[in-house]
Amino acid sequence: MTSSLTQVYPIIWQDNQVLLIDQTRLPKEYTRIEISRYEDMAHAIKTMIVRGAPAIGIAAAYGMYLGAREIPTVDPQEFLIQLETVADVLRRTRPTAVNLFWAIDEMLKTAQETKGSVEQIQQALLEKAKKIHAEDIETCKLIGDTGLNVLPKSPDKLNILTHCNTGSLATGGYGTALGVIRSAWREGRLERVYADETRPRLQGAKLTTWECVQDKIPVTLIADNMAAHCMKQGLIHAVIVGADRITANGDTANKIGTYSLALVAKAHHIPFFVAAPLSTVDFKLETGAEIPIEERDPTELYEVGNTRLCPTGVEFYNPAFDVTPAELISAIITEKGAVPPGELRSLK
Amino acid sequence: MTSSLTQVYPIIWQDNQVLLIDQTRLPKEYTRIEISRYEDMAHAIKTMIVRGAPAIGIAAAYGMYLGAREIPTVDPQEFLIQLETVADVLRRTRPTAVNLFWAIDEMLKTAQETKGSVEQIQQALLEKAKKIHAEDIETCKLIGDTGLNVLPKSPDKLNILTHCNTGSLATGGYGTALGVIRSAWREGRLERVYADETRPRLQGAKLTTWECVQDKIPVTLIADNMAAHCMKQGLIHAVIVGADRITANGDTANKIGTYSLALVAKAHHIPFFVAAPLSTVDFKLETGAEIPIEERDPTELYEVGNTRLCPTGVEFYNPAFDVTPAELISAIITEKGAVPPGELRSLK
Repeated sequence: MTSSLTQVYPIIWQDNQVLLIDQTRLPKEYTRIEISRYEDMAHAIKTMIVRGAPAIGIAAAYGMYLGAREIPTVDPQEFLIQLETVADVLRRTRPTAVNLFWAIDEMLKTAQETKGSVEQIQQALLEKAKKIHAEDIETCKLIGDTGLNVLPKSPDKLNILTHCNTGSLATGGYGTALGVIRSAWREGRLERVYADETRPRLQGAKLTTWECVQDKIPVTLIADNMAAHCMKQGLIHAVIVGADRITANGDTANKIGTYSLALVAKAHHIPFFVAAPLSTVDFKLETGAEIPIEERDPTELYEVGNTRLCPTGVEFYNPAFDVTPAELISAIITEKGAVPPGELRSLK
Repeated sequence: MTSSLTQVYPIIWQDNQVLLIDQTRLPKEYTRIEISRYEDMAHAIKTMIVRGAPAIGIAAAYGMYLGAREIPTVDPQEFLIQLETVADVLRRTRPTAVNLFWAIDEMLKTAQETKGSVEQIQQALLEKAKKIHAEDIETCKLIGDTGLNVLPKSPDKLNILTHCNTGSLATGGYGTALGVIRSAWREGRLERVYADETRPRLQGAKLTTWECVQDKIPVTLIADNMAAHCMKQGLIHAVIVGADRITANGDTANKIGTYSLALVAKAHHIPFFVAAPLSTVDFKLETGAEIPIEERDPTELYEVGNTRLCPTGVEFYNPAFDVTPAELISAIITEKGAVPPGELRSLK
């Protein structure tokens, strides 16, 4: 039951610029856009041309380099000051996923620690961005294989429900939660993926199903509100989701709807896993209550394509993420092992 | 804080035909279509031009009359045989809501019990359909006012979450769950409605918000998967939903997503109410496991307007309803009083 997996890379460094798959156009069009200025990278992150916590970390790292190479000074001190401005612009794109801030901090540290000319610092920044990128792909494969160890032992072939998109498109490649699913498929442990469509942006319908179809992994699309009904009918053996920020106690911010899914999984005694690189863990925050939750434009809720869903005069609430308390999570699957949320600090 | 309420009637008997608001065109267009043949009424029910359990009961009652008046015989026995065929066509439209079968049975009983000519039976059937229609509107108002007694006493003004559309459009007029909300608004007990958009058909986004805007009731639209997050933030004081079929033990089939909502309400200790006329209770069935659940066309899931959401090669699961077990329901609100699900039989 092994199957060759198609490699999809949402971010490519080529000819001194970044190529991004335009994820707002999938699955209708598979196109890449060229980014050579950091302001364009900030825009691409904000508008979700590139999205997914690990992928926006990588994109921000390249964004830092793109900004760095434009800084018109040969004075390293002045360079570092101006680099902070680049960092600020990139930081202000999306507030919830910590990988963004983590990657920007890694890049700033590299700049500060590189002794030499501005040109040498710029070169070091490019190397660091490439390293963050390459390591993320390796990390995802480790997460995928670690996940295999915690999946339910029976039945032989599992139906796994996932939410949003946590695949190649959300990472350097391979994926976090969808990486575990890919590994399960490779090892013959997967019967079928159930993909929540993931309103309002529909990343499950548009991106996760697209990745599954590329890899010939059987996938059934459901509306988010059908998950509990599927569980009650015994269709789901495990739930695996990604994360945008995990706090030290294991509370997990992830795409809106994750919390609801964790509650209904618990009600059906179905294991609920979070798969994420350690760069998603924000050990500076104790609990999920401290995580800032992005609220996005209401057009995401009331427009699909060119169809307006509701009349004028309606108000909207469009939180992009929610927080799942640690007690609803069976295990957090990282590149250094899978642990119950309470033992997350042991992986630090 | 009283407010005059706009009366919307989805079904009107006029000039010897039925006028239906075409609910598939709302909120963009508010149009009526004329139905004068029972096959057209069956089609209107199947395609959800008219929808909502009480409304399809009324529509089926008129459908029975439309079919009855076409039967080309003067022999009452032959008439009754042919009326069964009409009943069968109408019964085969939608399997879950019991009001459909209840109304058809009421019409058949009227036909059987009317002693006289075919013309007299036909006349009795028209009167019976009009009576079912008029009684439903009265029943809804009683449900609305009964619901006031079980709403939480504090805070003074409640935020109430509802799912799908259970308003005037789903009934003869006024509504069941939305009827309770209307009564709460009239009495100054309502702060705001939170409306689940209700994928895949989006009745919450398209119809419930439309009714609220008509009546100037403040309404916030959310995606279905945001309900748990709203509850956790203390935004919701009560949940009220309608029903398509309630079994003798209080298990309730209602629009897909209701079960999930009941589970997350319970996790947050938020009261969860079902509002429905007694014609929605199927005392012949003991538990919800016996209720047939309609599965609808997958285009509902993968198309919104002219936008296709996912690539080809994906499979779909599109159950239109789910069953909420009685133990998750705080009270069932009927025209004869509001009772815990376990006491439903006392209202029989």
